[in-house]
Amino acid sequence: MEIDLSKPILDRNERLAAENRIELDRNGVFVLDLMASPGAGKTSTILATIAALRKRYRIAVIEGDIASKVDADKVKAHGIPAVQINTGGACHLESDMIKRALDVLPLDELDLIIVENVGNLVCPTDFYLGENSKVMILSVPEGHDKPFKYPGIFQISEAVILNKIDTMPVFDFDEEAFTAEVRTLNPKAPIFRIAATKGEGVAEWAEWLAARIDAVKASVAEKPGAGK
Amino acid sequence: MEIDLSKPILDRNERLAAENRIELDRNGVFVLDLMASPGAGKTSTILATIAALRKRYRIAVIEGDIASKVDADKVKAHGIPAVQINTGGACHLESDMIKRALDVLPLDELDLIIVENVGNLVCPTDFYLGENSKVMILSVPEGHDKPFKYPGIFQISEAVILNKIDTMPVFDFDEEAFTAEVRTLNPKAPIFRIAATKGEGVAEWAEWLAARIDAVKASVAEKPGAGK
Repeated sequence: MEIDLSKPILDRNERLAAENRIELDRNGVFVLDLMASPGAGKTSTILATIAALRKRYRIAVIEGDIASKVDADKVKAHGIPAVQINTGGACHLESDMIKRALDVLPLDELDLIIVENVGNLVCPTDFYLGENSKVMILSVPEGHDKPFKYPGIFQISEAVILNKIDTMPVFDFDEEAFTAEVRTLNPKAPIFRIAATKGEGVAEWAEWLAARIDAVKASVAEKPGAGK
Repeated sequence: MEIDLSKPILDRNERLAAENRIELDRNGVFVLDLMASPGAGKTSTILATIAALRKRYRIAVIEGDIASKVDADKVKAHGIPAVQINTGGACHLESDMIKRALDVLPLDELDLIIVENVGNLVCPTDFYLGENSKVMILSVPEGHDKPFKYPGIFQISEAVILNKIDTMPVFDFDEEAFTAEVRTLNPKAPIFRIAATKGEGVAEWAEWLAARIDAVKASVAEKPGAGK
């Protein structure tokens, strides 16, 4: 029953996501959809990524939260444009929310938009927003068993970031078991070990992202009438 | 639009939840719905609560996860009956899932069922399962700003457990700001500071829960034809 009821929502979401994609390609903008549990360090990872890439790309951030604008304020404090979306209860972002955020961003002056999805390991996985890449963060305190319990998000992520690795000594995190299960669910996804607040491991992750951005920009620029 | 589509699901959920409630009252069983982010320590808190209360009450556990049965196995290893529900993608438990779990549990031999909801700070808040009490856990590594970002779950919880307090020195957790915001959202809810894996603070939480169980058992026993 749930499937029938949700289908119209998903169909509408896909249609608007495709419209977002066209608008973004036209402007040569790469969009990263960053997903994680509440408190896994999405905003810290975004700030660390901005620090690593801001000289190379023009960056903006779309912050998704049930309520509050604390995350957008944090990003703006670093001189980066940020749009806060309050879903007012919804457990994930949808493409119409992204559309409204894109409407207020200067797309022709941007290379990269990082979308911080609502803190949730389940719901964001089903919704295409028009992004180029979905990447997830798991933080060490959450435990190594999360790929077993939330396989969907590990399967659809292009890359997996393991954050707060500096807290390994404090938690009973079996990294071998974690890595093995991620490999089973998603053999191709690289796993980046970082401590976002300390900058540790961020360079490698940022290089991977930069390569993805450059590849997409190159392919979009080849299309007649697209790119900048 | 989303509201119209979800209403039939919610209505059906409420009806089945009421049926669960009747069946539970008839057997004098108290149900606790425990909600938290992935990795906040729901299973550890359940194990610590069982250790504190198993001499006083006959306890069973219903484990909700997208996939896997690792949590039910952990509980069973302590000699406590546990039913694993795999939602197969759904971000919360619904009352029909609980109904099926109740069907396989010996209700007339139980005093307390602890339901571990799917790891999620958003979706479980909207679904009444027939429980007597919803309680949430936030863990220190998730950060003190969570009440600002996920106010709904803090508002509907009867009590708030702050877990992993032993990791305070490792994280930049502003407990004063956290407590003040929880107080604003939910002035009556007690906040229990615990470190579940170390047993710290668990006694106080367990006493609160025991008082709730005893009060409900007493009120149900007074109803003609109800209780054991």
